[in-house]
Amino acid sequence: MSDAVLVLNAGSSSIKFALFSAEGPADTQALVSGLVERIGAGAMYRFGHDPVAPVPGGHGDSHANAMHWLVAALMQRFDGIDIVAGGHRVVHGGADFAAPVIVTPQVHAKLAALAPLAPAHQPHNLAGVDALAAALPEVPQVACFDTAFHRSQPRLAQLFAIPRALTEGGVLRYGFHGLSYEYIASVLPHYMGARAQGRIIAAHLGHGASMCAFENGASVATSMGFTALDGLMMGRRCGEIDPGVLLHLMRDRGMSVAEVDDLLSNRSGLLGVSGLSHDMRDLLASPAPEAEEAVALFCYRAARMVGSLAAALGGIDALVFTAGIGEHAPRVRARIMEGCRWLGLEPDTTANLAGGPLLSADGSVVAAYTIPTDEERMIARHTTATLGL
Amino acid sequence: MSDAVLVLNAGSSSIKFALFSAEGPADTQALVSGLVERIGAGAMYRFGHDPVAPVPGGHGDSHANAMHWLVAALMQRFDGIDIVAGGHRVVHGGADFAAPVIVTPQVHAKLAALAPLAPAHQPHNLAGVDALAAALPEVPQVACFDTAFHRSQPRLAQLFAIPRALTEGGVLRYGFHGLSYEYIASVLPHYMGARAQGRIIAAHLGHGASMCAFENGASVATSMGFTALDGLMMGRRCGEIDPGVLLHLMRDRGMSVAEVDDLLSNRSGLLGVSGLSHDMRDLLASPAPEAEEAVALFCYRAARMVGSLAAALGGIDALVFTAGIGEHAPRVRARIMEGCRWLGLEPDTTANLAGGPLLSADGSVVAAYTIPTDEERMIARHTTATLGL
Repeated sequence: MSDAVLVLNAGSSSIKFALFSAEGPADTQALVSGLVERIGAGAMYRFGHDPVAPVPGGHGDSHANAMHWLVAALMQRFDGIDIVAGGHRVVHGGADFAAPVIVTPQVHAKLAALAPLAPAHQPHNLAGVDALAAALPEVPQVACFDTAFHRSQPRLAQLFAIPRALTEGGVLRYGFHGLSYEYIASVLPHYMGARAQGRIIAAHLGHGASMCAFENGASVATSMGFTALDGLMMGRRCGEIDPGVLLHLMRDRGMSVAEVDDLLSNRSGLLGVSGLSHDMRDLLASPAPEAEEAVALFCYRAARMVGSLAAALGGIDALVFTAGIGEHAPRVRARIMEGCRWLGLEPDTTANLAGGPLLSADGSVVAAYTIPTDEERMIARHTTATLGL
Repeated sequence: MSDAVLVLNAGSSSIKFALFSAEGPADTQALVSGLVERIGAGAMYRFGHDPVAPVPGGHGDSHANAMHWLVAALMQRFDGIDIVAGGHRVVHGGADFAAPVIVTPQVHAKLAALAPLAPAHQPHNLAGVDALAAALPEVPQVACFDTAFHRSQPRLAQLFAIPRALTEGGVLRYGFHGLSYEYIASVLPHYMGARAQGRIIAAHLGHGASMCAFENGASVATSMGFTALDGLMMGRRCGEIDPGVLLHLMRDRGMSVAEVDDLLSNRSGLLGVSGLSHDMRDLLASPAPEAEEAVALFCYRAARMVGSLAAALGGIDALVFTAGIGEHAPRVRARIMEGCRWLGLEPDTTANLAGGPLLSADGSVVAAYTIPTDEERMIARHTTATLGL
């Protein structure tokens, strides 16, 4: 038998998974990754690059049943593996969890209590924990948080300028995408050696988008706040916006809280400004001036955020792009890098078009890279380390 | 008879005024400035440095009556002056008014229609126009806007990442304190010669606080947004905050729109974080760690904003402090300047304690100054220029 770690990211109607060997080289690619989606509504699954197929035999009617089926299917597919641990992406670790943790009943209760801070994700993440625990009752479960990496930040970076009682009640700038940034920080020495311990700004640009400033591998500031709505412009989310706009929409235009939430969370960002698509690929392919404006605003605001985060670091040694847009949209990287020339970043146009990883010219004071992120691998590493495997 | 311009800034229960000669040197100090306050509730007035005194004879029961009395009192005090124009601070010029304008009935109607964008100020500003028009029916009135200076900004700096229909409906980053920035831009050549046409960041730090990036004397970006609630931390206002915090307070904590507005507009900022005072002077004098934290957060966020605005400018040649805190709080200036060392700003500690105006050391790549602002003088200049006086 060969020990393996099952990494899970459970959403409202989906389970993303990746299976990692817990033996041999400590840090390898996943054996397989994939997803089960549309749980409860004609569930489908995909393993690796195989075609999407229906979950057989009605096993996709609930998270619990889908998990049982998934575990059995993985064990059948990888004959001789033994799943010895579950590693879960849990979006919110609140102010207390600054590192991954084994899910005990006490921990589970604390994480469930954080659900109001991330209602769209936290309950589903925990449902994934519960489902795997039911499928494999003897296997320990480790929760890995999107927020934990940012708990190293100085207190000033985590504060909003609101009454102390609210701050003490948990209204803080938690930050997200922490597993992605932690992964980037961990592999950056392979790219830039000892300079990786310097002042780094990483840009996780996907459907969600944020930036993180870190030094000596520890987060110093980030663009997302109490929720994942703050900071950079995103596919459907507004990012930074005057709080007075929300008050105006509700007080003067009669919108409800739910309507404003839907507006800013689902109908803004690239989609709202372009009026066309939330997907950067669509906008880059479109000749419409509205598409161009949305792309330009995305890049303008990213460059502004680099300036703000450089202030938090007292300068910048490297800018790292990652996630869907950051890894695959050279035109977006190019525009953001243009907006960072004043910091001493000299882009290498050819290298950028070729996909890097180094994007800056020889002699550029500020280095730039594009590096693929791997949150699942980070979770696998955390899980084996936390359990001492 | 000697021609004079009466400059007015009318609020909900007050009228601030300044009287300027419209003859002789084009740009002089006010002949007198002062205010009438508590209108309708035991009105008091102050002329220059005279003691505060009750408005006599019941004339302080309404804006209209107080204005009649004020005009008569000024003409009595300055024997032989003739008020030939009224110049008004009007907070909001919307997207259309990029310069001062003579108030015609058509203009008045347009400005009244902007009241929902600045309900705490716009109606009272216009009441001041009406009151002076009633007191001096033959005298032309000029409206000067806090927003107008920022209309030179590139469109990307004015956009929120929200649906286009809302943007077209006026939900833009208007910016404020424009008369202050315009004054600073106008006098900056006296301090730094031709370099004043370079990349300047001005910090208007008073009870309200904002920053503006300008180049060639034209605004490029600013920290305040659709309302004066956005951007820097202020005396009682939160400044930048995750929009998700507002949604959370209303959805999960049951707060009303009015309660959240009051929280973020009146009970946050320096007051909220310190729990002690909205006044920077009180906090600087306090030994409480909460006061220190509020001051530190104010300065941290200001330094972050300098980084963001420097990105909008593509660099920075000078940082200018103005308004109450910017002119009179060397410890605050010192901390903000420390946070700007990475940009090439080398503070001159002694000069800063002595009140400048030059605050940076010889050879500092980025210059720093403290310069008194004078919004009333800017309004007087605009008024005479607009009327061709």
